[in-house]
Amino acid sequence: MTPVDLGLPGSGERQTALDVLRRTRALLDPALREWVHRLPAPVARVASYHFGWTDSAGRTDTAPAGKALRPALVLGCAEAVGAPPEEALAPAVAVEFVHNFSLLHDDILDGDTTRRHRATAWTVFGSATALLAGDALLIHAGRVLTEQPARLATVTGINWLCEATTQLIEGEHTDLSFEERTQVSLDECLAMTERKTAALLAVSCALGALWGGASPERTEALRRFGTHLGMAFQLADDLLGIWGDPAVTGKPAGADLASRKKSLPVVAALDSGTPAGRRLAGMYLPVDGAKSAARNGQNKEETAQLAALVEEAGGRAWAERTAEEQLRLALASLAAAAPEEPAGTRLTALAKLACHRDS
Amino acid sequence: MTPVDLGLPGSGERQTALDVLRRTRALLDPALREWVHRLPAPVARVASYHFGWTDSAGRTDTAPAGKALRPALVLGCAEAVGAPPEEALAPAVAVEFVHNFSLLHDDILDGDTTRRHRATAWTVFGSATALLAGDALLIHAGRVLTEQPARLATVTGINWLCEATTQLIEGEHTDLSFEERTQVSLDECLAMTERKTAALLAVSCALGALWGGASPERTEALRRFGTHLGMAFQLADDLLGIWGDPAVTGKPAGADLASRKKSLPVVAALDSGTPAGRRLAGMYLPVDGAKSAARNGQNKEETAQLAALVEEAGGRAWAERTAEEQLRLALASLAAAAPEEPAGTRLTALAKLACHRDS
Repeated sequence: MTPVDLGLPGSGERQTALDVLRRTRALLDPALREWVHRLPAPVARVASYHFGWTDSAGRTDTAPAGKALRPALVLGCAEAVGAPPEEALAPAVAVEFVHNFSLLHDDILDGDTTRRHRATAWTVFGSATALLAGDALLIHAGRVLTEQPARLATVTGINWLCEATTQLIEGEHTDLSFEERTQVSLDECLAMTERKTAALLAVSCALGALWGGASPERTEALRRFGTHLGMAFQLADDLLGIWGDPAVTGKPAGADLASRKKSLPVVAALDSGTPAGRRLAGMYLPVDGAKSAARNGQNKEETAQLAALVEEAGGRAWAERTAEEQLRLALASLAAAAPEEPAGTRLTALAKLACHRDS
Repeated sequence: MTPVDLGLPGSGERQTALDVLRRTRALLDPALREWVHRLPAPVARVASYHFGWTDSAGRTDTAPAGKALRPALVLGCAEAVGAPPEEALAPAVAVEFVHNFSLLHDDILDGDTTRRHRATAWTVFGSATALLAGDALLIHAGRVLTEQPARLATVTGINWLCEATTQLIEGEHTDLSFEERTQVSLDECLAMTERKTAALLAVSCALGALWGGASPERTEALRRFGTHLGMAFQLADDLLGIWGDPAVTGKPAGADLASRKKSLPVVAALDSGTPAGRRLAGMYLPVDGAKSAARNGQNKEETAQLAALVEEAGGRAWAERTAEEQLRLALASLAAAAPEEPAGTRLTALAKLACHRDS
């Protein structure tokens, strides 16, 4: 099997993408902090910890934050249609709140104990407080969008964001239900991914375009860019969940396999009709305590065996190929939106980096 | 101790209030059902069960629904400022979704197993699915408000609703934190109630007025009506939580006491400086398994003893007196808004019924 080109960013592109993320953080963080500060104290404390600004005792911390990919897409798409990125700061903050609402709730539901190299919020503050903090961040997204000078486009934007967030919830529910099922088709898994991951990336792009004053056609092209990018991004994330370096991912090696997560490469392997896929199916049954095993990093040997079977059944190659294809479709949609330069170059670099986070 | 007049509705007023609730249901239910139908199937199923329309197997049911007090306030306040109530249907549906989002999450956090005479949603569908259904209802409120023809007032309305919902979350967190504390002052408990209960009733009134096109002064007067009504309503609810008839409340007798809930009458008793208050304090310590005891209806004798101590310490009389006072303030604010007749009469009757739900 030849190594598949995942549309790796060249070193110049990589630098461009890192610059975009740095610029995003510079614009986003003061606004994000100000809004978190406006939350009721008990949930502000959780949010502040979750964002990496404070430790569990409330002392200043500098834990690695997320990449803020979604805000970067909002700001980048506003810029791509000719608006100053800061004009789209409100939806950039809003999508970051929605994303982190979903992380807070997902970590509770999935029983995950580690995120971004730290203990998850619910393990530190208890699941009741973490649940309410998630609720508060979701609601805060609505406040952020409505405290701007009121415009009719705001109403449209909130409608889109709510629709995407409903899809995210549906995707999360489907993902959880997969754990209890023995049979999941690849189509089902792709549909779940479109909801759980791609919908929020797509609406991030659409909101940036909307706030930037783009035409409906251009907005839809940028939304499609986000959808395809979301699919490519999740495929890359699923590959990392199996073969990623724990030092980079912040999660234990093979955690997805140890907890028997039905991620895209796994489902592709199970669905492959190959002998390896059948052997994998025999081993990939819901295991009581699989999650706590994942936490403790036990069963390393078994995890390695599962990874080998996914690869042998073609799950890895399929995921790499599909990620590449989705990234190509994303960049084609971006080109169709005919963004202003250098915004188009920046979004291209960002998209490539997002799908190659192992570097 | 003479019985305190809680502003009981007369038989004519009672009939008026019941008519208001019936009219609300007639307008609300088709819209509510249509919106629930638009939710993703797995969460629609939970919502449909929670609203009493289907049983746990998804078969048509006719379980007793809530009174829909908040939608009734939205529609009633729109009418009170001279608009046809149906024009405020969107915010009426939205506040009902926010209220039920909070019930779904609260039941999980409180471990409550019974609501409206039926098993709570999380006990039927699991807490993960119920949590996501709560999330979906909250998000749905945003969709409902933004699918109306876009108006600038919508942006203001969403902002207010988000602010009230943040207060609700804060109140829920404070309420949960009370369970772990031995000392809670009456002021803290009143502040918690204003957030957890009164904020959503207040914003229901304000949204009705806003959608009805009221002036800012009139809108604020109706908002104050909702705030005071909310306080009176919660006091009445807390009284029912101790002395209410299970056949009416749908909860086990004395459930609040068995789970050592720090409701307003209890805190007033604990704070009273009386011998009975001190005896109560000695018994009212967080008890492991208190919630499961409440579920099983055990410790009836102890519960009766606690109720007697709350009453002896003056907690019951204080709560009845304060509820009456808050109801009086509510009706004064309503009068200040100078509502159109017969809308004012209807809201008065509704307010009285809401604070006397035991009849």
